[in-house]
Amino acid sequence: MLGMSTVRSPGSILEDVRRKRPLVHQITNFVVMNLTANAVIAAGGLPVMAIAPEEAQVIARAADALVLNMGTPQRYTQDAMVLAGEAANQKGIPVVFDPVGAGLSPFRDNLFTLVSGAVRLTVIRGNLAEVSCLAGLRTRMRGVTAIGDAGSGAGIARVAAAQLAATVAVTGKVDHASDGVRLASCENGHEMMALVSGSGCVVSALVGLFCAVEPDSLVAAASALAYAGVAGERAARVAAGPASFQVNWLDELWRMKPSELDKFARIRWETE
Amino acid sequence: MLGMSTVRSPGSILEDVRRKRPLVHQITNFVVMNLTANAVIAAGGLPVMAIAPEEAQVIARAADALVLNMGTPQRYTQDAMVLAGEAANQKGIPVVFDPVGAGLSPFRDNLFTLVSGAVRLTVIRGNLAEVSCLAGLRTRMRGVTAIGDAGSGAGIARVAAAQLAATVAVTGKVDHASDGVRLASCENGHEMMALVSGSGCVVSALVGLFCAVEPDSLVAAASALAYAGVAGERAARVAAGPASFQVNWLDELWRMKPSELDKFARIRWETE
Amino acid sequence: MLGMSTVRSPGSILEDVRRKRPLVHQITNFVVMNLTANAVIAAGGLPVMAIAPEEAQVIARAADALVLNMGTPQRYTQDAMVLAGEAANQKGIPVVFDPVGAGLSPFRDNLFTLVSGAVRLTVIRGNLAEVSCLAGLRTRMRGVTAIGDAGSGAGIARVAAAQLAATVAVTGKVDHASDGVRLASCENGHEMMALVSGSGCVVSALVGLFCAVEPDSLVAAASALAYAGVAGERAARVAAGPASFQVNWLDELWRMKPSELDKFARIRWETE
Repeated sequence: MLGMSTVRSPGSILEDVRRKRPLVHQITNFVVMNLTANAVIAAGGLPVMAIAPEEAQVIARAADALVLNMGTPQRYTQDAMVLAGEAANQKGIPVVFDPVGAGLSPFRDNLFTLVSGAVRLTVIRGNLAEVSCLAGLRTRMRGVTAIGDAGSGAGIARVAAAQLAATVAVTGKVDHASDGVRLASCENGHEMMALVSGSGCVVSALVGLFCAVEPDSLVAAASALAYAGVAGERAARVAAGPASFQVNWLDELWRMKPSELDKFARIRWETE
Repeated sequence: MLGMSTVRSPGSILEDVRRKRPLVHQITNFVVMNLTANAVIAAGGLPVMAIAPEEAQVIARAADALVLNMGTPQRYTQDAMVLAGEAANQKGIPVVFDPVGAGLSPFRDNLFTLVSGAVRLTVIRGNLAEVSCLAGLRTRMRGVTAIGDAGSGAGIARVAAAQLAATVAVTGKVDHASDGVRLASCENGHEMMALVSGSGCVVSALVGLFCAVEPDSLVAAASALAYAGVAGERAARVAAGPASFQVNWLDELWRMKPSELDKFARIRWETE
Repeated sequence: MLGMSTVRSPGSILEDVRRKRPLVHQITNFVVMNLTANAVIAAGGLPVMAIAPEEAQVIARAADALVLNMGTPQRYTQDAMVLAGEAANQKGIPVVFDPVGAGLSPFRDNLFTLVSGAVRLTVIRGNLAEVSCLAGLRTRMRGVTAIGDAGSGAGIARVAAAQLAATVAVTGKVDHASDGVRLASCENGHEMMALVSGSGCVVSALVGLFCAVEPDSLVAAASALAYAGVAGERAARVAAGPASFQVNWLDELWRMKPSELDKFARIRWETE
């Protein structure tokens, strides 16, 4: 870790996660529910996957972090997101938003407008195309997958953070996170991650988990990006393809020692 | 197996499952659907995962067992549970209920009140916190996970069974099942099971499967607990973490011979 | 490949898939969403799993193929299927329909009637029982699983294709696909595939993916059947059970070289 020796190390945050076992309320898409629940458990947290508006508030109030994901948007999960988000804001727990497929449909874009209008978001984590779309910038995408890195992830993270008044993480070959002023880049990860449906959603869930124990959301986000990335690098060593990679990845999240994370994390800090 | 030499052995029930291939209708939560469907197939049964009220009755009438799980409760799945449950009662097939997250929200508690008021439940399978909550007893939990075994699983199983007029299985380090009079304890299992999202839901599905061929629901439940537990012990031998454990666990459910189950099952019976 | 040396080889279609990376819009059941998304990625395509009526049209218009699956039917996914299907027809992209559990309930049968009345289906892929049911023929089934091959898959594929005015693929020990005139049989596959919940749904998703780059839907369907089958044969070599088989199967979809597919595909063509 370069340039910010005063911030907490990723390993010390991971250690804290395992000691405190934060409860992460996830209102996420139906494709990845199982995967992101297991990722949070593997990392040391406790997931609760309540999606109904009828219980969104009370469960958010019991949680240590809230993760919202618009992957399979629906009216009722949109309602649940607003209710849970308002409760999270009142309680003062972090809210992470994953704009899966932003720009794919007016329905998704309206969902983001609605949720971000009602709820103060702590971190937004998406790929270049999704974040660009939220920030009104242009990029190319096919479905929920960004095709090519047309712009600069670092620049877009910084601009989007300022514009959206949240910490923004743009993941890709290199991940970039910014709070509008500071910028962290993370070079961990493996290209196999892009072959796992919901790998980005996993990262968002881990960001929520880390934010539950680290009040500096940019430090928490950068640390979670490194954690997911280091585990991905290790998982790729023995993977025979994307499915065994996914199994290994979750296993490596669980096996990772805080000292290993600190040793292999490649986070670089820049400040204006 | 001690103390009840007259009851059928777990292995003979498993043998029966594989011969008859019972159809298990599951109205379960969205996090575990894939996992519990695959677990029923691995064990030798056939799953049907119909969640719509529009077809709940007709599908329950075609099934050999019904498994209800309130993990991601919604109005329409609640309706489907009542309709399917009533049809199951009319047909005389067993109904297993898994109270995931009981106590987390009034919405879940009302769902249980509604379903258990309309449907005669054969077996209720939950962790200590969930079952305690249903029976009006107090315990500590975080999200859907019980933290610590504050009370006695055996005592709570027996009290809850009497109070709820169903066979009750309380799973944890040691599993306990009771019909209010008899009590079976099962010492099989592995701590890795707690790291798999939905491992309890899998056990509930297997209880339903076993109940489809064994009319004594306490014997069926205790046998299914032992089956899941023995497979878990074997799966842990070569697991590198929770995700490879899950893969192994399903594989071991499929590989298990009835004679192996009888050899390694550690069920202890007590009667008042 | 025998009898139709003029059609494109499965390997050349696979090569095309990997070059063009088609976007496959799937409105599928909640049990298999994660699996079929990952299968499309492993094969070289891009999945988008949008199920809401509010965005069904716009997403289908952005896609290269549409796959509809009635595994967990609901009113709103039924609406989404019609809207997406109409948009797909207007755009001229292929529409694959998977009639999971046809005959299980009037709700499912009505869904098929409704969707097939509003949408021109390119390929229908089901097991013998499901396809027989759609075509008004009789067979035995238990839940979503066909028990025994009472009729002839080849004959039923041909009759159903003529009757339903679509290419029909009937999968089983031997797969059969017909457009009502031509008939292709595929002998690839492994019995382990029947132990994976949603393996048929995976095949349907791959048929959609192949149809996106091959206008002859019968050639595309037969090639996808062979592709899934060859991968299954390879996956079974080192599987310890159905769960490790599933992991291997996805890995093998990803590892397969077009030349390997051409070498091991066992497609036989017959013409009237």
